[in-house]
Amino acid sequence: MPARPALVIGSVAIDRVATPFAQSDNLLGGAASYAAIAASYFAPTRLVGIVGADFPKSFLARYRKHRLDLAGLQIDPQGKTFYWSGKYHEHFAGRDTLEIQLNVFEKFSPTLPPAYRDTPFVMLGAIQPALQNHVIDQLSRKAKPFILADTFDLWIHTTKPDLVRLLKRIDLFVINEEESLLLTGERNPILAGARLRKMGPRIVVIKKGAHGSLLFHPDGYFAISAYPVTKFVDPTGAGDSYAGAIIGYLASVNRTDFAALKKAVAYATAVSSLTVESFSVNRLSGAGRKTIDERYRKLVEITRF
Amino acid sequence: MPARPALVIGSVAIDRVATPFAQSDNLLGGAASYAAIAASYFAPTRLVGIVGADFPKSFLARYRKHRLDLAGLQIDPQGKTFYWSGKYHEHFAGRDTLEIQLNVFEKFSPTLPPAYRDTPFVMLGAIQPALQNHVIDQLSRKAKPFILADTFDLWIHTTKPDLVRLLKRIDLFVINEEESLLLTGERNPILAGARLRKMGPRIVVIKKGAHGSLLFHPDGYFAISAYPVTKFVDPTGAGDSYAGAIIGYLASVNRTDFAALKKAVAYATAVSSLTVESFSVNRLSGAGRKTIDERYRKLVEITRF
Repeated sequence: MPARPALVIGSVAIDRVATPFAQSDNLLGGAASYAAIAASYFAPTRLVGIVGADFPKSFLARYRKHRLDLAGLQIDPQGKTFYWSGKYHEHFAGRDTLEIQLNVFEKFSPTLPPAYRDTPFVMLGAIQPALQNHVIDQLSRKAKPFILADTFDLWIHTTKPDLVRLLKRIDLFVINEEESLLLTGERNPILAGARLRKMGPRIVVIKKGAHGSLLFHPDGYFAISAYPVTKFVDPTGAGDSYAGAIIGYLASVNRTDFAALKKAVAYATAVSSLTVESFSVNRLSGAGRKTIDERYRKLVEITRF
Repeated sequence: MPARPALVIGSVAIDRVATPFAQSDNLLGGAASYAAIAASYFAPTRLVGIVGADFPKSFLARYRKHRLDLAGLQIDPQGKTFYWSGKYHEHFAGRDTLEIQLNVFEKFSPTLPPAYRDTPFVMLGAIQPALQNHVIDQLSRKAKPFILADTFDLWIHTTKPDLVRLLKRIDLFVINEEESLLLTGERNPILAGARLRKMGPRIVVIKKGAHGSLLFHPDGYFAISAYPVTKFVDPTGAGDSYAGAIIGYLASVNRTDFAALKKAVAYATAVSSLTVESFSVNRLSGAGRKTIDERYRKLVEITRF
């Protein structure tokens, strides 16, 4: 059976990143970049985002290498691309945003090309919940799309009502442990997962970074350890590529049952382990499907007893 | 094949424990109590420790319920049992020791009854490394015992040379993530595990509490998620019962290959998930082997994809 298409909506950015060990700038960044490249390993992927006239041709070439459908990528000839500069704390315990220039992203309103409206597998990257809702409004109900949404702490603090509304409209919510605590007030991730499911999404994934992730599905609970990364360079985009791999894998098998979700989460674990091994999408994009499959098989091997 | 015997050496204590939610006193405690009861589910278990004349008969009855061989339990008719009082911080993020009365434990020198010297599976609980070394001196070399040792941060701070010497004499070292960082200086647990193995033990387990544990064996690496505990009462003894379950399981199969170690770690995960569901050994002792086997099977189920 051929893979169904996946749609990824989110930020596209030019990043500057400093870690305790190195720094790098003029990097291809943004949730949509990481997520769409990750998804592209599994399914034909459509990207919706916005960039300015300054967006480097090499970044577009990177997208094309992954055969991303860019009909939904708005290019504002008068504007500049969203710019983000961040610095990770010692031992990667948190990070500070040093500079943000929203630029074209400030007025971004994701509009789906008509051909995208019946995409069966959709990932809403962590943009404002109001915009995530706006995307859902444009999707064909007939197509019964499977919708994954990501978020981040800022929206929990500032636009919680929109987020709460969003949760009732999606199928899969992907959130990290700290955000889950912030949103639910529940510190035990098992209880938090159950509480999040009561807020709307029938499937929830709680990510714990180096400690793996937890899947809550109507048909059961699943826990996976992290891939054993020893060359940790930069965590930026790990969560985005994790979610992108999930939506891409599900589109590739056109299934959303428990068995498929477990495999999706395992692929996401493999894919995001590559993302953290370099700045930007370099390792993620360079690794190739074969390396992803090797890591998937290694995950089977190191978790089975 | 009948199970081989296991030997557990460690502290026996009367505890008083306060958590953010409740407190309880006059509790059976000490590493040897938790570890020996855990081991007893798998193999005939010998306990070496010391108590005073005040040690409650009900605690001895608890040991006997698990058919512990108490020939190595010294009872000092002039002394009082080791007493520990501790208070866990909010969200169980660390704990303070409020009071310690070493009592008979102060002059404890573990002496093995002659019949114990050829025990094939030995667990050295987290007593002073010099005493752990002293126990090894008494073991029959001919019997080629498999030796597991536990430790805790105090010994890393105060008696590191003795601990370093110990590490060269044992087969399996069980340590938690914070202690591993303290001992190796390495924050990445994958690299820390490799470094610990270079210090002597051919097998290392790094425990991450609610995030599961990692096994480093000459034949490979294994990672297991935690059992999904929702009724968390008191973590005291979780690590001791974890290590006790490992030594008991290995004794029961009389094997120490990679496959056996993975299963031992999974049983340890199941057993310690019971320990945290009550104060003292109540849940651990009351659960029974059937509940442990159910949790083991559930661990298989929730980690397989």
